[in-house]
Amino acid sequence: MIGNRHGRVLTRRALLDGVAAAGGARAVIATLAALGGLPATPTMAAAPALPREARRVLVVGGGIAGLVAAWEMRRAGWAVRLLEAAPRAGGRCMTLRRGDSVQEIDGPVQRVAWPEAPHLYFNPGPARIPHHHGGILGYCRALGVPLEVLVNENRAALVDAPGGPVPLRRVQADLRGLVSELAVKGLGAGGLALPLSEEDLVRLKEALRFWGGLDAELRYRGTSRAGWAEPPGAGLAPPRPNPPLDPRVLMSPAPWLAAGFAEGIDYQATMLQPVGGMDRIAAGFARVLGDVLVTGAGVLALRRVEGGARVTWRGADGAVRQEVAPQVLVALPAPVLAGLDTDLSVERQAALRALHYSGAAKLAFHARRRFWEEDAAIYGGISWTGRDATQLWYPSHGFHAEGGVLTGAYIWDDDVAARFAALAPEARGAVMAADGEALHPGYAAEVAAPVSVAWGRMPRARGAWAEWTAAQRARDYPLLRAPEGPYHFAGEHLSWFIGWQEGAVLSAWNALEGLAKAQG
Amino acid sequence: MIGNRHGRVLTRRALLDGVAAAGGARAVIATLAALGGLPATPTMAAAPALPREARRVLVVGGGIAGLVAAWEMRRAGWAVRLLEAAPRAGGRCMTLRRGDSVQEIDGPVQRVAWPEAPHLYFNPGPARIPHHHGGILGYCRALGVPLEVLVNENRAALVDAPGGPVPLRRVQADLRGLVSELAVKGLGAGGLALPLSEEDLVRLKEALRFWGGLDAELRYRGTSRAGWAEPPGAGLAPPRPNPPLDPRVLMSPAPWLAAGFAEGIDYQATMLQPVGGMDRIAAGFARVLGDVLVTGAGVLALRRVEGGARVTWRGADGAVRQEVAPQVLVALPAPVLAGLDTDLSVERQAALRALHYSGAAKLAFHARRRFWEEDAAIYGGISWTGRDATQLWYPSHGFHAEGGVLTGAYIWDDDVAARFAALAPEARGAVMAADGEALHPGYAAEVAAPVSVAWGRMPRARGAWAEWTAAQRARDYPLLRAPEGPYHFAGEHLSWFIGWQEGAVLSAWNALEGLAKAQG
Repeated sequence: MIGNRHGRVLTRRALLDGVAAAGGARAVIATLAALGGLPATPTMAAAPALPREARRVLVVGGGIAGLVAAWEMRRAGWAVRLLEAAPRAGGRCMTLRRGDSVQEIDGPVQRVAWPEAPHLYFNPGPARIPHHHGGILGYCRALGVPLEVLVNENRAALVDAPGGPVPLRRVQADLRGLVSELAVKGLGAGGLALPLSEEDLVRLKEALRFWGGLDAELRYRGTSRAGWAEPPGAGLAPPRPNPPLDPRVLMSPAPWLAAGFAEGIDYQATMLQPVGGMDRIAAGFARVLGDVLVTGAGVLALRRVEGGARVTWRGADGAVRQEVAPQVLVALPAPVLAGLDTDLSVERQAALRALHYSGAAKLAFHARRRFWEEDAAIYGGISWTGRDATQLWYPSHGFHAEGGVLTGAYIWDDDVAARFAALAPEARGAVMAADGEALHPGYAAEVAAPVSVAWGRMPRARGAWAEWTAAQRARDYPLLRAPEGPYHFAGEHLSWFIGWQEGAVLSAWNALEGLAKAQG
Repeated sequence: MIGNRHGRVLTRRALLDGVAAAGGARAVIATLAALGGLPATPTMAAAPALPREARRVLVVGGGIAGLVAAWEMRRAGWAVRLLEAAPRAGGRCMTLRRGDSVQEIDGPVQRVAWPEAPHLYFNPGPARIPHHHGGILGYCRALGVPLEVLVNENRAALVDAPGGPVPLRRVQADLRGLVSELAVKGLGAGGLALPLSEEDLVRLKEALRFWGGLDAELRYRGTSRAGWAEPPGAGLAPPRPNPPLDPRVLMSPAPWLAAGFAEGIDYQATMLQPVGGMDRIAAGFARVLGDVLVTGAGVLALRRVEGGARVTWRGADGAVRQEVAPQVLVALPAPVLAGLDTDLSVERQAALRALHYSGAAKLAFHARRRFWEEDAAIYGGISWTGRDATQLWYPSHGFHAEGGVLTGAYIWDDDVAARFAALAPEARGAVMAADGEALHPGYAAEVAAPVSVAWGRMPRARGAWAEWTAAQRARDYPLLRAPEGPYHFAGEHLSWFIGWQEGAVLSAWNALEGLAKAQG
């Protein structure tokens, strides 16, 4: 795979030596995977088998869905061209580093001014991969994209609560204790609709005691799970745990939310991230696609014609080009497709326009000092600000390194995101820096050089992810995912994994099944 | 620090370039830290300030406690010599790789026969660092030891339960649901000893609903937190969560234990590990200590003499040597010190002999295929076998790489450990391979080349960690941590952080305080 584009064949050993010199051990491991010692198909899931015959397909949109589809067709020997409007592949799978720039609709150009270092990057779109997303993980494996752990839940992270921020460990331990103590009472009140023997009951109470951190009387009176008031040392005095928080502090919404969110199936440990940035996945696809991928190619129109469909686009050089293909795979976000000049059915166009996309937004800061590690022993994970910034993400990599990039806001509530999006980039930075003060006193002086992305204002996405209503799911989803004449469709919105790269992968596979069945 | 031992001074840039060529970006980050751009003192805790005057101290035992003490004294300009019996520093902080060997008392030599690769290593001693262990983490930072996340709790890991193994996610979700539903009943029975308004009660029930994954009727009827019976795809059918497990399955001990263990203060996320093996910490100390550290120096006797104490040791060349120092810091595990020829007080010797050490044991396998990732999407974390092997640890690094080293047993129950230790190394491998079959069918055929360490049989440790009884803590702990004439003492057992490197660090700091006060 590597080197083939230049017609050269390297020996495995020579290649590995070169990779080791350039990128170290991790790069060697990655390359070994890419060299095909490992299977090229995903782990827990698999792309559909495509007929190995002469087919020609144009793919519009080089996000994950388009990349996956183009690569699978290319591997089957089909003649494929993938048109991507941006200068780089990936779509919302994007990473920002020194020298990169972002421009929202009607917004100024934001340039990333952080120092250049492998650990100083920001993923404004997808930033984590659940371990059970076998499609996207399989491509990481096949493309030799090295992965590392992303810390999603960190018990040292902070939660805004009445009276001031508290470490998540106190919230988790005290909630668990409170709920378990209540459960013991519920058990006494015959709460379990099961025939229980006396022995069962004893065992269940013992289990509840351990699980909840209760004392011998099955009461919650605090535990070291909540951290130390007096930490263990090497002195004579034994350590002393934190006393329980006032239950009314725990009953406010932020603590419950913070304590429950990482239970979600897509938020549970282990979560992963590509080493060096999420765009390493898109870059991996771009590498293997070679000249199949045409960047800077902004599609203007789609028309059904004799022999398929005609795609009109403006190339990177400004020239308008056209191509007719028997089949066209449209892998664009719904709001972008809705805005194109197409001859799609009236029903489809209406459904595309009606599908609401989240306006979710993120902002990153550079910090010269990793104050979250130095001052608060926070290594990765997420704090809850209780303000517009919503979440604050600490990097799960570059521990103890020189400086870091902090996600200073991750906002998904549409009203809050609209408020954020309406601000100029500099004002966003000022407001988010102030929000961080609620958790880290002195924060505003520690962070600098904000860069933000409000997805609703990004010209080639016009939203972060689809948000189906139940009625739309029943009526419009079957319509939008079905092919229409020469047109086929893919994208995270055409799956049940909304907002995840896995959805883009699975929708691409679904579209490939349709393409395989279509007349070439 | 780097290069100084050879009298050369490199420019910062030249050094970093060299490091980048040899070790890649992570090594550069690590080197930046070691170069002193970062403070040399730990983050959340600090070593005591030592008087900068001519002092001479002999340190016996080059585990973490001895290394920390020797380095701090060296930094203060004291004349220090550190005697370590093994050919390498670190004590129980140990990593095994291809070519290394292990020999227990009266046991055969076990040689590590796995392939050589950076990700193929085994930490038979400490293998994780909690994020709040500021002492040891501060030394990682100061020594430029790169850290990465260790996954301690992985919801994809397996738990042995009646009827067969279940993923931890099902156990966690269903237990949480069960307990929360019981808590709702307990709340109805007036279980919360708090004055609650009607509004409070509504809010608390809503919170319990989210936290527990309950339905609108506040009943637990299963949730996607427990994983998918029919995963989300890109088809027409919506995903379907796993149904709840029979509560009687959950009531067996292994599930509760597995579900609660990572709540412990020293087991919570974020947990960390040095990139490449725990012994990178010891190697970092050895590098900065230079010729202060004398390896292969097995101490034979300690005697009080005019001017301090005389230490007699056999060197790596077989010759017996002696040295008198005004102060001697003894940083040996209690059972090892109890076995030496010393003139320590009768009371101290009795207390040393009486202190029980855990016989904890670990075994590692090499696997050519990372079947846990490929077949079960398990990326790091711990499974519970319900058999002698107790826990099975998956590596938190080298994801998707060629092969892996799996911790095939981590046993801490003394009876089980004794049964394990009594077996010859090959028999241990056979039994543990069979135990793994309970979780991963075909396991025994996937794993090979076992290497095991039963700490009770390791000649220079004679146990994994101290296990104080409450009576010993009250009576013997003050005695053992107090200096005696020219003798001072350190080691994890002389702290409240039993079994953790942090305890060794804090005990070393405590000993340094005593040494600072002692007459030079």
